[in-house]
Amino acid sequence: METLAPWRSPLARALHRNRSDSHSRYFQLATVQADGRPANRTVVFRGFLEDTNYLKIITDTRSQKFNQIKDRAWGEACWYFTNTREQFRFAGELVLVDANHPDPKMQKARQIAWQEISDNARLQFAWPAPGESRSSQEAFSPSPPDSTLPLSNFCLLLLDPVQVDHLELRGDPQNRWCYLQDESQTWSVVAVNP
Amino acid sequence: METLAPWRSPLARALHRNRSDSHSRYFQLATVQADGRPANRTVVFRGFLEDTNYLKIITDTRSQKFNQIKDRAWGEACWYFTNTREQFRFAGELVLVDANHPDPKMQKARQIAWQEISDNARLQFAWPAPGESRSSQEAFSPSPPDSTLPLSNFCLLLLDPVQVDHLELRGDPQNRWCYLQDESQTWSVVAVNP
Repeated sequence: METLAPWRSPLARALHRNRSDSHSRYFQLATVQADGRPANRTVVFRGFLEDTNYLKIITDTRSQKFNQIKDRAWGEACWYFTNTREQFRFAGELVLVDANHPDPKMQKARQIAWQEISDNARLQFAWPAPGESRSSQEAFSPSPPDSTLPLSNFCLLLLDPVQVDHLELRGDPQNRWCYLQDESQTWSVVAVNP
Repeated sequence: METLAPWRSPLARALHRNRSDSHSRYFQLATVQADGRPANRTVVFRGFLEDTNYLKIITDTRSQKFNQIKDRAWGEACWYFTNTREQFRFAGELVLVDANHPDPKMQKARQIAWQEISDNARLQFAWPAPGESRSSQEAFSPSPPDSTLPLSNFCLLLLDPVQVDHLELRGDPQNRWCYLQDESQTWSVVAVNP
């Protein structure tokens, strides 16, 4: 069991205080493309991997981000909470847990993630390949996939933060903290200028 | 006068339909750091540069993003509208208009941007350097800067999109369009799979 990182408590507070907004579980994940340019898209927070500080996300192995991350396994998530007006930025390694991941514990986590999403969310993994020329309407009505065993293109994506920047816009002046993990996995925190 | 890009109309509609949310003018801007890793933060949309399709943002020359952009002038903005549940992604060149920019038209635009922001927003450019160890409370009560002439660290930042991805989550299935600008500055649009 990993120790809870010190930023877990302010993040839990933000999630609680913004819980009435369904979009409070969405954040923007930046990655880098093969040409060195950044990419950025909204993803859904799926909770933490059990007993760790890894943020869970899901993706499709046919998506651009899957290939970007395979190439460069680093990301920065930017999470803005509209109700409490605060921002968390998480920089860290990205771990792809696709159907070929060798670790049985990770495969178990992938399977659980599949079981935890809605029927509608599972259905999207049976849709035509994202980003390609628009398919016919019928292609978007596949038979519902099995709710226990993930489709082969279902991928669990983990973000393992090593740096977290927390900004509260509501302070006067605003408050900002920077959390850093050192090589022995120990976290420190400093207050910085907003 | 540049022609209005074809994505301007759906974006104007989204801005209008989400106008009651003050956060509807915030988006996340991804850049790439010197070490090749992505960075991502929330910024405020300040409208379009007159007669162009450039999105206006402001920044501080003392911020990390200023130095990242100086090094690698490319970004991707991810703009999620919570009320209408739609996302725009803008990839393009980033242009820094700081106090040293040689073009008088750009300096004029920088000055107008300074005049258009609130007293509070202007005051932040007189605050201690962002990201450094937290300064004393008094350092955050500087005398208000002149409202006409920008402080030297005030920087207008422009995003000139060459690719725009528009996703509407509300469709069944969701709708997604990809707008592309070719080398002759002509825009085309295709419907793609969500």
